[in-house]
Amino acid sequence: MRKYFDLQLKQLHQELKEMGGLCQIVISETYQLLSKGDREVIKSIVVQEDQMNQKERDIEALCMKLLLKQQPVATDLRKVSAALKMITDMERIGDQALDIAEIVETGTILEADGGRLLGKMAEATMEMVSRSIEAYVEQNLEKAQEVIQSDDVVDELFVQVRESLVNRLGGTGDDNDRILDFLMIAKYYERIGDHATNIAEWVEFSILGRHRNGKEA
Amino acid sequence: MRKYFDLQLKQLHQELKEMGGLCQIVISETYQLLSKGDREVIKSIVVQEDQMNQKERDIEALCMKLLLKQQPVATDLRKVSAALKMITDMERIGDQALDIAEIVETGTILEADGGRLLGKMAEATMEMVSRSIEAYVEQNLEKAQEVIQSDDVVDELFVQVRESLVNRLGGTGDDNDRILDFLMIAKYYERIGDHATNIAEWVEFSILGRHRNGKEA
Repeated sequence: MRKYFDLQLKQLHQELKEMGGLCQIVISETYQLLSKGDREVIKSIVVQEDQMNQKERDIEALCMKLLLKQQPVATDLRKVSAALKMITDMERIGDQALDIAEIVETGTILEADGGRLLGKMAEATMEMVSRSIEAYVEQNLEKAQEVIQSDDVVDELFVQVRESLVNRLGGTGDDNDRILDFLMIAKYYERIGDHATNIAEWVEFSILGRHRNGKEA
Repeated sequence: MRKYFDLQLKQLHQELKEMGGLCQIVISETYQLLSKGDREVIKSIVVQEDQMNQKERDIEALCMKLLLKQQPVATDLRKVSAALKMITDMERIGDQALDIAEIVETGTILEADGGRLLGKMAEATMEMVSRSIEAYVEQNLEKAQEVIQSDDVVDELFVQVRESLVNRLGGTGDDNDRILDFLMIAKYYERIGDHATNIAEWVEFSILGRHRNGKEA
């Protein structure tokens, strides 16, 4: 029984890593889209996002099977419930990537300057997702907590984007429509950072048995 | 066994209704805050959001108990998994309400004109949440699908707010900072609409056994 559980847990880890990988791909592709304007990338984001939905469904089915057939308790139960929560946040990261792609589709491509800030946001959130999944698989509390702390960096970048845009709104040359699109894109990256933080908080919960927002096992 | 399950399901319905009620309260309070600027309301939103987190925890525990002890199958299993998903969306509605409150705290109160559009957004999303919970309890497919369709109204209102703001950005008199805050608040209401739609989609799933985004039982 235990051996079978461990085997399924290993499969769960593998699937979570793959879904985390898809998160990184879509985030990276949004930035590629923004910086190079290659509209082929939009098609790829649509495909990846679809795969993420499929992955969420697969992992959910696996978790339900684990819950119903193995009736795990304590740490094992927490690991499964944490996984169920994590995939919701990962799936939402896919949604946000698609939201960014949709703005670019109907909108316009950003210029280099602000792009640097958005690029930093994209990079930081990719790192957060990848490290939170690592933390889950390794059950590494420190790593999870580092991710949670690093959300401040993403929030700070959003504030910087916002400030730079407020200043540009007064100028000539800039199209207000583009500036608002730009702000929305930054907001989506900030949200992706929030989802990555949620993932890391669920990892923390799976290790400690309590959630920092008051949730318990 | 069955009787006990039905009893717990009834309790689940009750708790979901209460959590839905909290969603409505916080949405209504955000609008109260925006239109009247009563900062006491911020404190109340903080308290309600905390209660929503607690409620999510309680419902989650109840669902886990149902899954582990009753090992439901088919429709019953779907009802429990749908509930687990719905509470995540409801909890996020609380987060968005808090986000709105935070903008108002550091920002400023909107003037009457745009407020009418935001008021409509707040009203529409409150209605969506309340009707999706009703649809779940009644297992009413038509009602769930009406909610899903009505998300277009909220999206359209967001587009209207956005357009009105783009036009005002050129004018004098308006503070760009305030306008960007305004846009963010509209975006949060749009997100609340998305979460209400997610809830209704989970209701649809609990009835039909398949999710419109490809998820299956």
